[in-house]
Amino acid sequence: MAKIGLKWLFCTIYRTFVSNFLKMIAEIITIGDELLIGQVVDTNSAWLGKILSDNGIRVRQIISISDDREHILMTLNERVGRVELILITGGLGPTKDDITKSVLCEFFDTSLVLNHAALEKIEEFFISRALPMTHINSQQAMLPEACIPIPNENGTARGMWFEKDGTIIISMPGVPFEMKPMVSNYVIPEIKKRFDLPVILHKTILTHGIGESFLSDLVETWEMSIDKRIKVAYLPQPGVVRVRLSCTGNSQEEVDSLLGKAEFDFIQIAGKYVFGFDDENLENILFHRLKECNKTLSVAESCTGGYLSHLITSIPGSSSIYKGGVVAYSNEVKRTFLGVNEETLQKYGAVSEQTVHEMAEGIRNRMETDFGIGISGIAGPDGGTTEKPVGTVCIAVSAKEKLIVKTFNFGHLRDNNIRRAALSAIYLLLEQLVKD
Amino acid sequence: MAKIGLKWLFCTIYRTFVSNFLKMIAEIITIGDELLIGQVVDTNSAWLGKILSDNGIRVRQIISISDDREHILMTLNERVGRVELILITGGLGPTKDDITKSVLCEFFDTSLVLNHAALEKIEEFFISRALPMTHINSQQAMLPEACIPIPNENGTARGMWFEKDGTIIISMPGVPFEMKPMVSNYVIPEIKKRFDLPVILHKTILTHGIGESFLSDLVETWEMSIDKRIKVAYLPQPGVVRVRLSCTGNSQEEVDSLLGKAEFDFIQIAGKYVFGFDDENLENILFHRLKECNKTLSVAESCTGGYLSHLITSIPGSSSIYKGGVVAYSNEVKRTFLGVNEETLQKYGAVSEQTVHEMAEGIRNRMETDFGIGISGIAGPDGGTTEKPVGTVCIAVSAKEKLIVKTFNFGHLRDNNIRRAALSAIYLLLEQLVKD
Repeated sequence: MAKIGLKWLFCTIYRTFVSNFLKMIAEIITIGDELLIGQVVDTNSAWLGKILSDNGIRVRQIISISDDREHILMTLNERVGRVELILITGGLGPTKDDITKSVLCEFFDTSLVLNHAALEKIEEFFISRALPMTHINSQQAMLPEACIPIPNENGTARGMWFEKDGTIIISMPGVPFEMKPMVSNYVIPEIKKRFDLPVILHKTILTHGIGESFLSDLVETWEMSIDKRIKVAYLPQPGVVRVRLSCTGNSQEEVDSLLGKAEFDFIQIAGKYVFGFDDENLENILFHRLKECNKTLSVAESCTGGYLSHLITSIPGSSSIYKGGVVAYSNEVKRTFLGVNEETLQKYGAVSEQTVHEMAEGIRNRMETDFGIGISGIAGPDGGTTEKPVGTVCIAVSAKEKLIVKTFNFGHLRDNNIRRAALSAIYLLLEQLVKD
Repeated sequence: MAKIGLKWLFCTIYRTFVSNFLKMIAEIITIGDELLIGQVVDTNSAWLGKILSDNGIRVRQIISISDDREHILMTLNERVGRVELILITGGLGPTKDDITKSVLCEFFDTSLVLNHAALEKIEEFFISRALPMTHINSQQAMLPEACIPIPNENGTARGMWFEKDGTIIISMPGVPFEMKPMVSNYVIPEIKKRFDLPVILHKTILTHGIGESFLSDLVETWEMSIDKRIKVAYLPQPGVVRVRLSCTGNSQEEVDSLLGKAEFDFIQIAGKYVFGFDDENLENILFHRLKECNKTLSVAESCTGGYLSHLITSIPGSSSIYKGGVVAYSNEVKRTFLGVNEETLQKYGAVSEQTVHEMAEGIRNRMETDFGIGISGIAGPDGGTTEKPVGTVCIAVSAKEKLIVKTFNFGHLRDNNIRRAALSAIYLLLEQLVKD
């Protein structure tokens, strides 16, 4: 306990020290019953957290509350005056359940007035889409007198900028593609004009092939020795542990240099597990590696059902490395589209190293690419046997004079199996590219 | 303003009335810096919100805070004693950044003691995976004396059940596949043993082909006339507006009958826009319709890059209706795998109604299915022209003696274009199935 006590003391001193740099603290409030009953996952908060953090604004807390007048008022009363910035999303739609605007009027003791510019924009919006405008659409041009309206490039509900007791309060629609341009193009630039923000940078090191606790043990001395302005966190995912370093400072140069040194030292110790950094993901890394060495890929999928192709083609420009794929769900398609032998399927089964070998080779030859991937497995929930239980997945990577084939067992969850199979196929090919 | 005032008064009376039924109020606290800087989207809260809500427990608020001792303590101090249930996730990992357990010891004024049963389980866990056990793993068997430990089927960190001032406080790991079984198999059953929970039911009506404000106008009289215990919310998504009805009551029968009547009346007015209910989605509905009429499908995708196949094959049992697909990213693959004519590609281009017609027919004939879908478009961000800007997508649905071809323009966001193109293809086929 003494050790823990000391750690707390240290943390408190450390935080006091660090907080000198932090000039702007923000909170995010998302409004909507759909968030509380789990009908919608709150992706807005993560997006807002990232853009604020990237711009030197620290997010202290995210709160999701219901479309309930008293609860909204209470939450605002508790928070306004305590932090510099509050971003609110949700509850600005045209329908009756959307009450945020009225509640804000009550909170800021102001009333709704017709905003002529907003009305014109709404009219234009409907004309451009050749849709009739209804009464409730025109009501969206009624805005609180006390706010500065924020333009909405992709919809009819304006954002609203209020200020009270030293807090900027910004209310925006919950629809992501309406909210995001408001923040990027208006809110962040306005705040940057008015505040001198510190630099907060995060560096994430991506590792594969080692569990969270083993990695933490391996780099223990590193963690003790790095600059105390850097905070370390471990974020495990299926097959991947991400190590995040966060550092706050007065200048880009200072923070860059601190993080650069810590990263360098980490790689000296655990480099063999590191496969990438920050927002990189496996499909992105594969894309860049293939592009660098001017190689092409085709894919034959059974249990992953198109997911591997989807991951690769999510990347803009992927057509330069990816020619195409076949989703061979039935054995017939495995034979006719990939040239898998009937005897192989009969003797070894669709989920076998022999079958994926022929799938990978078949797609590579027929699509005339440098690499071919073949995947076949039992994603579940049904279809498992004692010999080949749900989660068994065979993967082959075929190149002109090389072949890798491997069998995995991922577990019993269909979605997980699909995802892990696709990522493991990318790993196998990446390993091959590194060896070459 | 008088109207708004009256509305508030009404809402307050209504809520007081409804709240008589609500016996258990919960709050969710998720802990982790990764949530605040937007590195991880908080999907746990939505999952928890849904399972609590389905079991008659109302979630009042979701709060995400950082791995910070003072902030965790303050949040607990503010909330314990005010609600019946607090669920906490995150911060229980074996690494140094995970501090939840120590902070809970401080808050409940208790200390860590070795839990022998937990230690045995951890040892078993590592033996079964043939991994060595490290010191920090064994520390996970140290648990606060004041808690009831909750078994973890999929990991080494136990959950912890505390009680204080009339509030049950439950702390669990943030890793979803560890947390979820704890809640489903332990927390919910334990709470149901001890509390007599009311019935809260949600019914969601899924509509397509009408915007949020037009739909709201159309059903205005319905909304005014339904039972006042039912709350209505509109949730727009690209191409879909979901209408959620929430109702609280004393018995399943009462709530079922209220919701059933409201749903029936809604369909009388807006039935032609309704395509499904609740957690149904388009791919699920397509799967069931095809299965009912014993028809099969194959898919030829260009710009959606495997995403349509992925949506369909995410459904367990989809192999009964889906034979396979070709991701034809290059023109060469369109020719050799689908039989698209070189002249068609030359004359009309890869993104044309003529090309998707041949793609859909080609895949249907070659995979010998009842329906074939062909999709080609410009997902972006590059590749657009004045005539065919980014977001232009052509889709064809081919059946033996029928063909539907349609051109869409979805916008400028790659991810959105891929998603909307895949969903629109499913719509087109569903429309065809309804007509047949």
